[in-house]
Amino acid sequence: METLKIIKIGGNIIDDSQALASFLSQFAKLEGPKVLVHGGGKLATQLAKQMNIPVEMNKGRRITNADTLDIITMVYAGKINKNIVAQLQSHSCNAIGFSGADGNTIVSDKRSTQPIDYGFVGDVKQVNTNTLELLLNSNITPVFCAITHDENGQLLNTNADTIASELAIGLTSNHNTELYYCFEKNGVLKDITNDNSVVETINIKTYKSLIDNRIIADGMLPKLNNCFHAIKNNVNKVCIGKPEMLFTPNTLYTTIQK
Amino acid sequence: METLKIIKIGGNIIDDSQALASFLSQFAKLEGPKVLVHGGGKLATQLAKQMNIPVEMNKGRRITNADTLDIITMVYAGKINKNIVAQLQSHSCNAIGFSGADGNTIVSDKRSTQPIDYGFVGDVKQVNTNTLELLLNSNITPVFCAITHDENGQLLNTNADTIASELAIGLTSNHNTELYYCFEKNGVLKDITNDNSVVETINIKTYKSLIDNRIIADGMLPKLNNCFHAIKNNVNKVCIGKPEMLFTPNTLYTTIQK
Repeated sequence: METLKIIKIGGNIIDDSQALASFLSQFAKLEGPKVLVHGGGKLATQLAKQMNIPVEMNKGRRITNADTLDIITMVYAGKINKNIVAQLQSHSCNAIGFSGADGNTIVSDKRSTQPIDYGFVGDVKQVNTNTLELLLNSNITPVFCAITHDENGQLLNTNADTIASELAIGLTSNHNTELYYCFEKNGVLKDITNDNSVVETINIKTYKSLIDNRIIADGMLPKLNNCFHAIKNNVNKVCIGKPEMLFTPNTLYTTIQK
Repeated sequence: METLKIIKIGGNIIDDSQALASFLSQFAKLEGPKVLVHGGGKLATQLAKQMNIPVEMNKGRRITNADTLDIITMVYAGKINKNIVAQLQSHSCNAIGFSGADGNTIVSDKRSTQPIDYGFVGDVKQVNTNTLELLLNSNITPVFCAITHDENGQLLNTNADTIASELAIGLTSNHNTELYYCFEKNGVLKDITNDNSVVETINIKTYKSLIDNRIIADGMLPKLNNCFHAIKNNVNKVCIGKPEMLFTPNTLYTTIQK
């Protein structure tokens, strides 16, 4: 089976137009079928401020109320997604922007309002890959924003890391899938102050000891849970690191193993 | 060849959530391949006001400066397009949202800055239908917002009526294409105060006399120019009227003929 790369980029690239332009020019040149998943960065928060829409919080976490969902849809699916697609086209990478509603590709359940009502937030229920396979076979690159739908007309805010892992899992039927989480560090670090102290491989056993030793904590926990979810469900390769891991030989990064 | 319907809806439907929901539920049931093109309505102007972004005008016409292009991209390609796609999915119509950048489907030239600099406005140069044909053959419905690109990474604000006519013309190679412009009236009216005074057919000769007699003026002129552009370029049927013309037998509307 042909190798398919699913690559997720986050706020550190999205929020820096030069970093984004540089990433996209290199991403466009990657050979073989590929899917890009992007987060939202700070633009949605900036727009909410400009529009005087208050950020609603519950126990320290942001709530996606109707106004916030509108903002996210405008920023993620509109401004960010279409500008990424246009830039990829300028590098002769034939991209099409997707939310999970487009092609009914990602169906979510609205998260239960108990114990905390997060509002219009979706947990992925089903990935439909027929349309994606059709496009990948025609050398087209899907570009996903972090929005899904419930099949009843409701858009839902969904974690971009989860979208990347669920797409990678869904696309294993016809591809050898590789999942790359790009972020601001060289991977999981033994010493957070030393970007060269990369843990080069993590498996389930070492994962537990890394958590026990507080080397993995906070924001890295859900990211690594997505990684293990993917590797347990037949994704062939799962990596975390800087975007350079995709383009530059001998770059340090963390590989997740079963 | 199979008949393909290209249907354009404008502000009068987009701005009225009940009218839009009703239209989409009926559109979803239309048999055969179809393409939806939507305008923007008043939402972009509302958002600009909320964000305190001034509307820049030149000789009475709005200029698409960089801020306005961002707003249009957020509202048209984000909020409106994705909500339409999600609603169509809820009616089992498998839709995918498009700007002209997606799939490199519509390439525009930025309009000359002489005699008036309209800013980031694009005039359609080329329509690439390969990807659209692939999707239409798989029973997928493309939904276009009124944004194109220049193949150099720049998004461009583009007239939705023109997008509809250019798509209809481009898709004539493999389809018998029918172009429907939906708006708030029953068609071209002999007497603007009487919605039943529909001019049922217009051809080039009668068009000129209708202009001379001031029955066609103002906003109807560019719409009818798009109609004649389409009918001259092998589009099989071009109609103007209320959306009911698509769904309800014996509805009055105007048909454009060669």
